[in-house]
This record gives sequence, structure tokens and C-alpha cells, in this order.
Amino acid sequence: MERSYAEELPKRAGERVRLDGWLQHRRELSNVTFVILRDATGTAQIAVPSGDAGGLAALHNESAIEVVGTAVADERAPGGVELRDAVITAIAPATAAPPFELGRPSLEAALPTLLDHAAVALRHPPRRAAFRLMDASVAAFRAHLCTQRFTEVFTPKIVATATESGANCFRLDYFGRLAYLAQSPQLYKQMLVGVFERVFEVAPVFRAEPHDTPRHLNEYVSLDAEMGFITDHKDVMAVLEGAVTAMTRAVADHADARIAGALLPIRCAAPFPSVRFTDALELLVPEFGDEVRSEPDLSPAHERWLGEWALREYASDFLFVTGFPLAKRPFYTHPDPDRPAFSSSFDLLFRGLEVVTGGQRLHRPEDYDAALAARSIDPAPFAGYLEAFRFGMPPHGGFALGLERWIQQIVGAKNLRETVLFPRDINRMTP
Amino acid sequence: MERSYAEELPKRAGERVRLDGWLQHRRELSNVTFVILRDATGTAQIAVPSGDAGGLAALHNESAIEVVGTAVADERAPGGVELRDAVITAIAPATAAPPFELGRPSLEAALPTLLDHAAVALRHPPRRAAFRLMDASVAAFRAHLCTQRFTEVFTPKIVATATESGANCFRLDYFGRLAYLAQSPQLYKQMLVGVFERVFEVAPVFRAEPHDTPRHLNEYVSLDAEMGFITDHKDVMAVLEGAVTAMTRAVADHADARIAGALLPIRCAAPFPSVRFTDALELLVPEFGDEVRSEPDLSPAHERWLGEWALREYASDFLFVTGFPLAKRPFYTHPDPDRPAFSSSFDLLFRGLEVVTGGQRLHRPEDYDAALAARSIDPAPFAGYLEAFRFGMPPHGGFALGLERWIQQIVGAKNLRETVLFPRDINRMTP
Repeated sequence: MERSYAEELPKRAGERVRLDGWLQHRRELSNVTFVILRDATGTAQIAVPSGDAGGLAALHNESAIEVVGTAVADERAPGGVELRDAVITAIAPATAAPPFELGRPSLEAALPTLLDHAAVALRHPPRRAAFRLMDASVAAFRAHLCTQRFTEVFTPKIVATATESGANCFRLDYFGRLAYLAQSPQLYKQMLVGVFERVFEVAPVFRAEPHDTPRHLNEYVSLDAEMGFITDHKDVMAVLEGAVTAMTRAVADHADARIAGALLPIRCAAPFPSVRFTDALELLVPEFGDEVRSEPDLSPAHERWLGEWALREYASDFLFVTGFPLAKRPFYTHPDPDRPAFSSSFDLLFRGLEVVTGGQRLHRPEDYDAALAARSIDPAPFAGYLEAFRFGMPPHGGFALGLERWIQQIVGAKNLRETVLFPRDINRMTP
Repeated sequence: MERSYAEELPKRAGERVRLDGWLQHRRELSNVTFVILRDATGTAQIAVPSGDAGGLAALHNESAIEVVGTAVADERAPGGVELRDAVITAIAPATAAPPFELGRPSLEAALPTLLDHAAVALRHPPRRAAFRLMDASVAAFRAHLCTQRFTEVFTPKIVATATESGANCFRLDYFGRLAYLAQSPQLYKQMLVGVFERVFEVAPVFRAEPHDTPRHLNEYVSLDAEMGFITDHKDVMAVLEGAVTAMTRAVADHADARIAGALLPIRCAAPFPSVRFTDALELLVPEFGDEVRSEPDLSPAHERWLGEWALREYASDFLFVTGFPLAKRPFYTHPDPDRPAFSSSFDLLFRGLEVVTGGQRLHRPEDYDAALAARSIDPAPFAGYLEAFRFGMPPHGGFALGLERWIQQIVGAKNLRETVLFPRDINRMTP
């Protein structure tokens, strides 16, 4: 008999069907035992006479099973249909009781325990659903950029030159020579503007930051884009706005949004509100005091406050902050032509957390020479990168979106590690 | 004036249009100079009176320029339209003549020189077009698997355990501990079968193989898939066949296929022909001698011969080879139930080159214990992986497709490095 899926049951009432999946949990009443099977699409209830549980009683939860039964409409069953007269066969019995009860609404274990047992914990429907939203977000990102003439590229993760400085780079023995893991595809995506005009990449990036906080990951997925022939950073913001709007729709429309506990609605209306960095600091004065005016960047608390302000003032979960001080930005950052101490850059806050950083980049070769000299960076290791600017690099800019932070804000996760299948932090390399 | 693209010119005859792009080359005749502009979509010809070349003469090729002119139908022009009465403005002048003449059909430089100057060499239309086919291939792969209920996942590239052995792994200092760069997402994608049933990942993999040949890369892009509740490896082959067919169509239908020099047609008709490893060796005997019968694997020369045989016998560019000896395959490989010395595995040859390896995996925890013991592999570092098999892992299998090899066979590149934007090999870490 051909396999059916749990999500199809409501259309199959009256038919004999076969389901494959995992024995998630069971609820024994005096006369009937309800067995909950979980497959790729959801869960299904199977009603088994309690005296007849037979082989079933010997099976641990999370055993892989095959169930052949008759789909019967019953308004008391979840989804309005359950399987009866079922034959349950073990495909692969679990060898012990699982470390968590996956049938519960939430897993009763500390995060490190959940991460240690990722192979089981990720099966919990809300956790699994969050990663389905991740899949959908990335697909929407790519699909939107493809409509905007972007080309997907694949750039090396083993690099000879740290993007900015070697401080936060993992070091690698590359056939006896020192190499680094790429902190970002920044230099490569800029070079590729000269080739394709518009490029994007979805790939891991690596940061050797020795911080153990709920905000830090040492490996994460970056959604990068870069585009040429722009007027200024506002052209980049417009493309980002389109991509984020598409991602937001993909999440809101997703069948797993409810299961994942996505915080809906996502208040997203283009154009996103935007505030200049210096004006943002003024807004923060009543709450954080006069001294906030001399801050060179926004702290997490500042971002949270601004997120609440954007929600209050603009009913928006998104807020652009533009024009950060140039001194705090990397060497390739383009200054604001009208205020040279500030940059043509932006952050995008989503519910009070920076999820995107972007901006216009320098494009004239002499500006790169000056920027590297001003920071005492040796240009020699950047030769292959700097060559691009000697051969007609148009004004260009781009952005990088942190995928895990995006999902964190979608589902309201307290710890960024909850939004990574197998997180890497200063204390964790396994599983 | 709003920007137009080169590809739109045939529809714009009679109109005043603006193009942005690069001054690719120019051809001076006595009365007229033909300027070729290249943008993201192709090239356009601009006719300028030779005496009137003015500022243009001072511009090096590869300068970024803006051209405003009148589109005029002229059957002598490439594409049937050229721009006249044009005003050409430099957006970003090149500071020197480029190292290659990008207007020529092929670049006259040795491969190492092209790779050293990737920022310029990749702009050559045939090279750029090959990477557009790569983009299209990956998009088709993902799109096909999404129709087959696969979930896209992102797994860590910094790992504590070498997938099979540490021999070909890059080593990393991870906050004072030894870590490796992942050779493949194999262990993770198997664990995730227990979560999502079907997963795929498109991501870099790293191999520290110290070989300097046209066939070796030390970092490449792997298109991985894994699926549960299979009968045997033939279910995996069917999914792969669907994905490859979709990728083949995406390439053949692509506007850049001709520019990239794609070798068309790609002879692809499902079901792909399939030959067992032991039968393949028999086929090779007349050419390679009796001793080929004792080979444990296929050599590149064997693969090429079999590719020619498949084309001759089946008019197919694709050939499955199945049932490789178990001894040569990794510990997680499932034996053929009928021939335990052989495996439920397959390679897919594309035009005589292995581009995919796959098969069914072990799924019973006791089989893993035995397989690791038989190879004297300590199970302790695999604890997080082995846990998945203790909790109901159904029969499953998957495959990995090497993206660069795929494109190499599409365009007939002699060296695998030609199919990577910025290749990494034993001697090359830059640009």
C-alpha cells in the first residue's frame, strides 16, 4: 500500500491508509489507547483498544513504526480524523525511552541538555517547525533576489587574509601555511560586483569571539548581498526591504508558523521607518541620560528601546538606523558625502535586535589606499581584492543578514543557540 | 533617465536609452569606432564617429561607463540594434589597461595567471556565463527537492570528529582545542532524517588532500541530500535522477548556455542506464586486461571508458554504477542483503566522470557498533551521532553531488579550477 502522510488524513476519511513515522507518545484510557504518530508533515491519532495494545506496549516512544488503518472522521480527534482497526508494525524500535517527552508542549530540560541530545530534541514539533521557517525564509530571500537580477555565488571559506583584522578569526593549518576561516564573504562579493553586478550568497561565516553569552555564536549562516551601479546606500536598503518583506510573508503564510510559536503578526510595511544614528541617540537621552550622546554605537539595550519606539510610533517591527560614525565601521565603508565623520551605512533592527548590517562601500582605488593607510593595514595581502577597484568598480553596496537572529526574533527565542540545529560556541563543538 | 540593459535593446529601437556597464573593447575603423559595453545581461554596440572619440580615447578598457544614446536598428550590428548619437560618461575609470583582452573569444593566458587576476578574468563573458549555469543548476536542484518534501538545512562546518578518519581533514585551533573542518555533512544529514525525514544542504566541504592535479580541489560545494523510509538505495537513485534531470533542463534552457560553451545537448533520459560494479569490470576487461577484475574501485580511465560505453549503448550522458565493494566504502554504508561483500551504494557518472556518490546507510544501532568495531574506530566521539540510531532511525540513504564537477562536465573544462570562482588548492589560497 502506498504511503500517506498525516496532513492528508482529513481528505482520506473512510479509506484504508498507511502511515510511516515515529511513535511520539500514547495516552492510555481504560478502553482505548490513543497512539500519536509523527511524520514529516505533522501528527496523527490512532485509536487502539487498550486490551489489544499487544506488541505496542513493548515499544519505546520514538520507535519508527508503520501503521495501516482506516481513517474515520471523529470530531473529538485532533484534525477531525483518526485511524482505527490499525495494524502497527515496528520499522526500527527505539532501544530505550527517549531523554525527553516529545509529546509535551515544551521540553522539560535545560538548554545544554537539549543541545547535547540534539538528535532527539530537534524532533520536538515546535523546535522542528522553527527550522522549517528558516528553510522558508531562505527560499524567499533567494527567490526575491532572483527577481532582482542577482546571481548566487559560492566564495571560499578558507582565506589567506582576515577580512578586517586577524583578531576574531579562526586560524587553520593549510598545508603548513597559516590560513583563516572567513568572517564574511565581504571582499569576494565586492570583487564579484565587477563580474555579475549583483550577487548573493547564503553560507556559513566564522567568528572566533571568545564570549559565552546568549547572543554569541562562533559559526552562523549569513545571507549576503552586494550590488553595483547604485546611487547610495538607500538603493541597497530598498532591495533589503523587498527581501525582508518576502521573507516575512513566507513565514507568516507557513503552515508551521503556529507550531513553531512564531510571534504573529510581523508588523512589516514598506517603506520601513528609518532614523539617523545621531537622532536615535537623542531619542535615547530621556531613558539613558545625556552621556548616550557620545556613544559610538548602539548597545543591545539601546536597540531594544528603539525597537519599542518603532513599534509605538510607526507600528513597525522593523527600523532602519542610518549614518553610524565612520570610525566604528570597517575600512571599506563609504563616508556620507555631506557628513564625512559619518558613514553611508545602516543597520536594520527587527523587534529591537540588529539583524542586518549594510551600506555603501568605497569604490575608487585611491580611497582604498587611503583607508588602509589610515588604519595602518598592510595592503599587500589584499592585492587580489584591490585589483578589482583598479578596473572600473562602480559605486556599490550590500548587506549581511544573520539567519539565526532572524529566526530568533520570529519565534522569540531567549537564546540564539535555540535557532541553530547544531550550535558552535566557545564551550560547544558537539554534536 | 532610467537604466536599461543590453538585453533589452532589440525592443527599444527608436528610443533614447541609458546603459551602464563596462567598456569591454572597441574597434576603430576610419570613420566610426564601435564601442562594446558589457553589463549584467550581455553586450551592446555603440557607434561613435572616430574623430569624435574625445574623452573616450583616454579611457582604458574595463572602465565603468554610462552611455546615453539612441537605439537604432541595423542588421549589421550584433543583436540587430546599436546605439548612436551617444554621450559616454566615465563612472569609474580603469587606472591601467586590463591584464587580458576581454573582448576576445578566449583569454590568452595560462590558468594560474587567470586565477591570480580573478577579479578581471571572471568578467570574460564565457567564464561568467559558466557561473550563471552553476547558479541555475543549484536553483533547479533545490526547487526539485522542495517538490519532493525535502527541508533545507544548515549544519556546522567546524566539527569535533572527522567524518571517517582524520587523515584528509584540515585541523583548526578552536579556543585551544583541536577541531576539524567538515569533510561532508554526512553525519548531520543522517541525524536530521530522524527530524525532517528528508533534508538537503548546499554548502562548502573541505578536503586536505595534498594532491596537485586538475581533478583536485581542497574546498568545494557539495549538494547533499538524505531521505528516510526508503526500501533500498534505488529510492535514492530515483530522487537523484529527478534532481539531475531538473538541473539538466535548467542548463539547457539557459540564455547563457551558448555563451558558456555548454556542450549541448545533454543526453539525459530517465531511467538512467545502470550497471553493477562487477559487470562494469567485465566490460572493461577487453580494454584494460584481465587484472581489472580484481580492482576494488574504478579509476578515472575506467570511468571515462564507461562514459563512452553508456553514450554508445544507451545514448546517455549519465550512467549509474551500483554495488561497489563494501570494503572501500565508509563505515555507515549498508551492505547489499544478497551479496554482503558488496554495498547498496552507487556512483553517478556524467560524461565519464563520477559526479555523485550515494547509497543506503546502516540504520540499526547494533550495525553501527559492529561497523565501528570492525574498523577499530573509537565510538566515543560519535556519541551524539549514534544517539540518533537508538531512537527509531528508519532505513535511509542519500547522496552528494560535487557542484564544480557538474559544471566541469557541462562546459567541458580541462581543469576543475576553471569551475570555481576562487579555487583553493595545495598551492593556492588567494585571491
